[in-house]
This record gives sequence, C-alpha cells and structure tokens, in this order.
Amino acid sequence: CHFELSNKYHIIKMIIFTFVNGGNVLVWYTEGSHWINMKPLLEKLVDGGHRVTVLVPSASLFMNSSEPSRFHYERVESSLSIEVMEKFMEEFLHFSIYEMEHMGYVQMYLRFMELFRINLKFALGNLDGVVKSEEVMMKLKRGNFDVLLADPIMPGSELVADILGIPLVYSVRFTMAHHFERYCGQVPAPPSFVPGAMSKLTDRMDFWERVWNFIFYAVQDVVLNHIYWKTVDSYYSAVRGKPTSACELMGKADIWLIRTYWDFDFPRPLLPNFKYVGGIHCKPAKPLPKDIEEFVQSSGDAGIVIFTLGSFIRNITTEKGNMIASALAQIPQKVLWKYSGQAPETLGPNTKIFNWIPQNDLLGHPKTRAFVTHGGSNGIYEAIYHGVPMVGIPMFADQPHNLIHMKAKGVAVIDAINTVINDKSYKENAMRLSSIHHDKPLSPLDEGVFWIEFAIRNNGAKHLRVQAHELTWYQYHCLDVFAFLLALILTIVFIFIKACSFCLRKCCGRKTKTKSE
Amino acid sequence: CHFELSNKYHIIKMIIFTFVNGGNVLVWYTEGSHWINMKPLLEKLVDGGHRVTVLVPSASLFMNSSEPSRFHYERVESSLSIEVMEKFMEEFLHFSIYEMEHMGYVQMYLRFMELFRINLKFALGNLDGVVKSEEVMMKLKRGNFDVLLADPIMPGSELVADILGIPLVYSVRFTMAHHFERYCGQVPAPPSFVPGAMSKLTDRMDFWERVWNFIFYAVQDVVLNHIYWKTVDSYYSAVRGKPTSACELMGKADIWLIRTYWDFDFPRPLLPNFKYVGGIHCKPAKPLPKDIEEFVQSSGDAGIVIFTLGSFIRNITTEKGNMIASALAQIPQKVLWKYSGQAPETLGPNTKIFNWIPQNDLLGHPKTRAFVTHGGSNGIYEAIYHGVPMVGIPMFADQPHNLIHMKAKGVAVIDAINTVINDKSYKENAMRLSSIHHDKPLSPLDEGVFWIEFAIRNNGAKHLRVQAHELTWYQYHCLDVFAFLLALILTIVFIFIKACSFCLRKCCGRKTKTKSE
Repeated sequence: CHFELSNKYHIIKMIIFTFVNGGNVLVWYTEGSHWINMKPLLEKLVDGGHRVTVLVPSASLFMNSSEPSRFHYERVESSLSIEVMEKFMEEFLHFSIYEMEHMGYVQMYLRFMELFRINLKFALGNLDGVVKSEEVMMKLKRGNFDVLLADPIMPGSELVADILGIPLVYSVRFTMAHHFERYCGQVPAPPSFVPGAMSKLTDRMDFWERVWNFIFYAVQDVVLNHIYWKTVDSYYSAVRGKPTSACELMGKADIWLIRTYWDFDFPRPLLPNFKYVGGIHCKPAKPLPKDIEEFVQSSGDAGIVIFTLGSFIRNITTEKGNMIASALAQIPQKVLWKYSGQAPETLGPNTKIFNWIPQNDLLGHPKTRAFVTHGGSNGIYEAIYHGVPMVGIPMFADQPHNLIHMKAKGVAVIDAINTVINDKSYKENAMRLSSIHHDKPLSPLDEGVFWIEFAIRNNGAKHLRVQAHELTWYQYHCLDVFAFLLALILTIVFIFIKACSFCLRKCCGRKTKTKSE
Repeated sequence: CHFELSNKYHIIKMIIFTFVNGGNVLVWYTEGSHWINMKPLLEKLVDGGHRVTVLVPSASLFMNSSEPSRFHYERVESSLSIEVMEKFMEEFLHFSIYEMEHMGYVQMYLRFMELFRINLKFALGNLDGVVKSEEVMMKLKRGNFDVLLADPIMPGSELVADILGIPLVYSVRFTMAHHFERYCGQVPAPPSFVPGAMSKLTDRMDFWERVWNFIFYAVQDVVLNHIYWKTVDSYYSAVRGKPTSACELMGKADIWLIRTYWDFDFPRPLLPNFKYVGGIHCKPAKPLPKDIEEFVQSSGDAGIVIFTLGSFIRNITTEKGNMIASALAQIPQKVLWKYSGQAPETLGPNTKIFNWIPQNDLLGHPKTRAFVTHGGSNGIYEAIYHGVPMVGIPMFADQPHNLIHMKAKGVAVIDAINTVINDKSYKENAMRLSSIHHDKPLSPLDEGVFWIEFAIRNNGAKHLRVQAHELTWYQYHCLDVFAFLLALILTIVFIFIKACSFCLRKCCGRKTKTKSE
C-alpha cells in the first residue's frame, strides 16, 4: 500500500515532531501588555508538547520568574535595579498623562526623545545581562534551542538568534511609523494610502493629510536613525567584534507575527512572512462572580457599561474623577468602573467602583451595551471579539492610534458615551467587526503557534523571505536602472542630434557647393 | 448560560449558512487548464451544500455542458462556431511550437500580438452571448446569485458582477508581467526583486537583468494598454451606456485566489485580499491499474521515469520523436511515455508508450525517480505535492516561465534527464518543496473554498481592499506631495536668498554711509 506516501511521510514527521521531540523554544523578555500578549501563545506551545524557556531580567517590572508556571524561567542579571526602572516608568507615565497637555509640540517631542534615549540605555543594560554574561551565553548555546521568539521592542533578540544560529520569530504590535517593519522587514508602505503608525491618520487621506503622512514617515526615519540605530549598531558591533547592522539582523527574521488583523487595521501591502494574528489572547466569556452578576442583572433592559482605564492608571485627579463620575451618573445604564483611587464625590447611584473586574467575561455578557476604554489594544480586541461598541478616553502611548482605527471602522466614538449606546450603527458595526474577526480559516492563536512550529520543523522559513533584503536602497527603487536608461536615452539623443547636424552640414555644404558651381 | 455568546452566534450563523441556505455561486466560463483548475473548487463547493451554476459558451472547446455533472450548466449562445475556435487553437499551437523557433524577436512579438487580438475578438464574441442576450441577463438577474467566481483570462466577469451587484472572486494563475494584478489589483511589484511573469527571470537579478525586467514591465504595460484595455473599455462603455473602465471594475474584486504559493513562486509583496492557493487540484495517489503497476514493478531498484508533454501535444515531428526516444533508451530506468502519435523507430526496450496514464497516481508512486514534463503548472504542482524532481521540455505559453521557477528552486533541470536522477540534491530539494507545500495551516482547496464562502457570508470582503484603488497614479506615488514640498522648499530658499541679499544691501549700504560720514 504505497499510495499517499508523501502525505503520510509528512504526517509521520509531524507526529514525531510534536509528541516525541517537541520543540525547544527560547523566549525573549518583554514588558507590560507585550508580555500579556505573549503568554497565551506560550501556553498553547506548552500544550503542544514544546519546552518553553523565558529569559527574565532581574530588573523586570512585569515578568515574575518566581510565579509558578509551566514555562522554565531563566533569570538574567541586569545591570539595573527595579527601583530605577520603577522611577523611570513613573516619570514616563507622568509625562504622557499630565505634562504633555501643557507642552508645545517641539518641547513635547524633545522630552519624548530624551525619555526614549533613557529607555534605550536601560534596554541595553538588560541586554548586558545576556550577551556580556559568559554563563548565560554558554547556557543558551548548550540549550539546543530550535527557535527564538521575541517582541522586537526590546533590542537584542536578533543578535542572540544570529549568534546561536537559530530561526527567529517576531511578535509585533507595531513600531513608530512602521519603521522596523518597513526598514528591516522590507514591507512596502506607500505613504499615499498606508498611514504611519501613531500618525493619527486613517487610510482615507486628503492632500494635506498625505503631505503630513509623508513628512511623518520622513521625520521618524531620520530621528530613529539618529537616536536608535547608531547606538544599537555600535553595541552589536562591539559584541560581534565586527561592523554589524542591527536592522540587517532583524531582516533575517523568518516570521513576523503581527498582532493585528483587517478587523482592526487598514488593508495594506504585506509580505509572505508577515502573519496577522490580532486577538491572539481573546477567549470566550466565563460566568461572572455572583456579586457582579447580581449587579449586572439589576440593570434590566438598559444594560451595563464597562469602564476601565487600564492597568497603568490607578488614580486620576479629583477634578477629572468628579467630571467623569457626574457624566456616568446621567446615563440609564448601570456602570462597572474599575478604579483603585478615591471614589469621586459626584458618583451616581448607577455606578459601582470595583478594584478588579473580569473584563473579558463582562464584555461577553449579553447585557453589555458599551465599553468605555483608554484604548489599549488588548481591551479593544476583546471588545471586537465580543462585538461591543466603544467609547474612547485615550491616555497615552498607542491608545489614541488604536481608537482612531476603531472610530474609522464605525465602532467607537471618543469621549461621548450616549452616542454609542443610542445610535444603533455602532452596535451593528461592532457585530460586523466581530464577525470579520471570527470568520477566519484559523484562529489567531492557532495561526501564531502554527508558524512558530513551522520555523522549528523547517529550520526557519527562508522560502518566505523576499529578495529585497539583499538589495541596496537605490537598487530597490531601480534608481540605478533609471540612471542607466536616462544616460542611454541622452546618448542616443546626443548622437542623433550630432548626426542630424552633420548631415545638415553635409547637405547644406553640398547645396552651397552645387549653388556655387 | 449566556457566555460564549458571540462565538455561538457566529457558529450558528455558519451552520445556518451551510446547511439551510447554502450559497448560490455563479461561475464564469474559461478554457483548457484554467477549467481543469476550477473544477475541484466547484466540486468542493457542491460538497459544502452550495448551488453552482456554470456559464458555458456554445463555442467552448473544453467545457462540456452535456456531460453529467453536479453543476448546473447555463448555455450561452456564442456568435462564434466551434470550427472557428478549433482552427484558431491549431494556428496558435503551430505558432507557439513550430513557427516561433524560426522567427526573429520582433517578428515573433508582432505575430503574437496579432493572435492576441484575434483571441480578444473571439472572447468578446462569447461575451456577446451573455451581456447582449436579454434572456441570459434576465436569468442571471433572477438567479439571486451570492457571488461570481471567474478566471479573469476571459473578459466580462467584472462587468456582469457589477451589473448584478454581487461580490466577485477571481481565480488567477498570473497575467503577462502581472499586469492585471498590478494595474487593477493594486499589488506593489518593485521591478528590482519581483520578476515580471513570463520575463524568464528569477528574484535574484543582477544589474542587466533588472534593466531587462524594468523594460519588460514597461513594454507590457504600454502594449496591453494599447491592444487590450482600449478595446475592452469601449465594449464595456457601450454595454453600460457610460464611460466604463474595465480595470477599475476588476479592482472591485473582493478576493483574488492566486493559484501559486511560495513553494512555486518567489516571495513578493501581496495584499490582504490576495490568497495563495497553488496546488488546489492536488490529491493523494490511488493504486495503479494492474498492467501499469506490473510495468512499474519490473523496473526494480532503478525505478521509473514519467514522460508527458501535456494534453495539447498529441504529435511531434519524426525527427524530434526519434531524438527523444533514443535519449530515453539510454537510461537504466523504465519509462512511461504518454503519447498518441506514431511510435518512433529509436524506441528503446525500457520505454513503453501509453495513450493515457494516471499521472497523479504515478507521481505518488515510490518507484518514481523523475518527471519529464512540458512544464504545465498543473503537472508541476502534482510533482511538488509528491516530491518528485523534474526534467523540463518547455513547449509554449507559461511553460518556460514555470520551469525557470523550478530550476531556481533546485528541483528541475531543463533538457537533461540523467542529472536529476543521479544528483541527489534534486530529490532532496523536491522533498523540501513538498514539505513546504504540505506544511500549511489550510490546504489550498480548503482555503479557496473558505474565501468564496466568506464573500457569500459577508457580501464581499470590502475590509480587505486597500485604499490605493481610490487614488490616481500620481497620488499613489506621492508625486503631488513631492511637487508641493519641492515648491515649498524652493519658495523658502528664494525668500531666504532675497532676505539675505536685502540685509546685505542694507548693511553694506549703511557701512558705506558710515564710511562716507
């Protein structure tokens, strides 16, 4: 019985791969919501029989290596202290939420760049703990890892993947103006219809918006080149002992898992090794705790509104708190407010403050009418998953960017709760996005796991990598070809003119001669 | 039990969709291997509970509406006769296989364009039978179709989809220089690393090859604009009674199913609504008929070679036949030759001629060592599926193009059978491509069916369509933005110079004055 051989061969290989060997996955450290997003992928990998080793710097704020878990944590001694990191985080939040409002654009940008520089210095401090520690590098080399999974927001993963000679899989939300994706991933992004990430533009741009988008790309490219690549390149070069381009190393990534999809993002060109896995952390709702369920049921037909400003914001100013509370007091819905600060004086009887809420389970509840959110991408994806319209109160980072996407898709308004509850189009659009989100051949989680396993099975994914990586910028844009063709045409025109003038002179000469004869 | 609501809602919708309603799929007519490739998709759609209606022109050479089948055939009265079509096909084959060899490049191109024009005239003759027949158009309008599935090689589908106001799904192998995909589908294709289809180039191009690729794109664009779009646009405009751009209508296609994948094609930019389904017709091998199995087993360890030149080539010249037969006589393998012409005199004892062979079942046989092929994409995909190295004898159409891809991937040589059998790298590469082909989250057939059903469920796929479709060419390339910024910079420079010269005059003027004082 020889038929279906190659198919069987493949299936047998898959079975051996999954159950006997399993893969050996090394995971780069990351922070905050990036780590929250990485976890479900790692859990699923462990379910699939893989061994998962996660690097954790001693100065990590969000990763807890002492927490019981199914992953193996490998502690990395950072040259920084937790206190320094916490102080910086506070400084950054203070800048983003309070200082920015009172700053001019240039002043704000300069301050942002200053913070960005400090952040990079800290990131390289963490990286010291890996590449400058002989002990860690020896462990990694002996670890026989099959693949390195990393969020490129923390530099270093591409360097270590290159040193270890193993495939690299990125998990990316986005980078400023899609700079990494464009420069290092070689994704084409015509500024005419691909709005730069964080530019606050949509894909429908008028002339002036396209001018702004164009300038936005250009400025980010110049600035990042100046403050990011120069520093990282010299760090990498020092480690390797030879001139090393960090961007070129990033370009060797086999798969880019992009944590968005066309329910959230605007359609744009992509490359075969870019896989869109937005909503990788979403899951069905579970039943609510009894006290919360009772409060929810007490809302009757009016339903409930969920209000949270994310895990970073624990306290807001008294003034802001009173304003929000009195606005919420005026709606007929019951409101669940996740907040750990002082209860505002103007709190209405319809609003209840909770220290913690089961956000996903509430979003999946049929009584939920709207989600008032700061606009973090994790929360937005849960709302898309369950088809809940949103009210955005963007605070900082990518939150304005995310909410502009949701506004453009017709599922969110910014700062106006009654509209999304009473105008039926928001609910309809939310259900449409939810339908687009679910109507995929593969769930984002399965897709993410699939491509990591693919990289393990096939030792990377070279066949998906465009040849553009091997070209210089002028070759990519055919400028050398243009120059050559232009020179050719000019030469032909020159010869033609010379020949004409020569003939003309000959003829005229002859004529003159004839005449003179 | 209210949890998992949106998920359940979605699943229930899917169940209702599939089992109660089913979709109503209209299929545009096509020819030859394009029709062979369409059929498995239609079969799978019927399996899924959809109704499939196929348009068949009375002058079709390859579609047989009287054949018993699970599709409903709708006959379209073409203004052409079968005889005229057959005569043209013969003429075209004669040109491609015999005449071309003795022609200069320009002469060949002119003749090709002449045949292309005739082909277009015939295609519009078939289209008359649909759009100019009130009876057919009435039937289509009353048919309540959910989606139109078409290979755009035959014009008209985009016009009819637009008239009926239903979503359009294309199934495309490729078009000359990717002209339709680039112009109408808005796929970016930088000539620096995306070789134009039929250019005979790979994605690794040196300077001169990039020059040639650039010119190749430019020439095709000019020529197709001249001989294709002008004619089709004026036909469409006459039918609609208003200026209509066929390319713009094509740009409204919801999904483009591209019948290739990264096992076959070179990685290149794509768009969210481009889905790669190469090998959609492939299936596991079935046991061989007894006489063929006996012949195959008689080959011993040396194994067998399968030799076919496709369904078009029934006869070759005596000279060529003798040459091929004597070459095949020299190898230790047994050869199965699919051929319906006169047996050549030099036929060796190891070679057996068959009127018909079960090609797919033979390719899946463990004794198969090599596949000698004309390079049709269907046969190549079957070889990839089963991991069989190839020897190419390209005859015409896309065959040289296809074989150059296989040569670049290291699984085929052109005109040299011993190499692929004895050099182990070809078999290894073939197994690697086969592995890439199978190692996908979804089979190409399932993916194709999924996106057709998606278009039915969601009334198209507007969320996957880039905004580039709404831009003019100079907006797309930001030329208006460039011009504006250039003007701005020039103005600033001009004002700066004027201001400087003004100040200079003032200062110098004052100095002169002071001095004179």
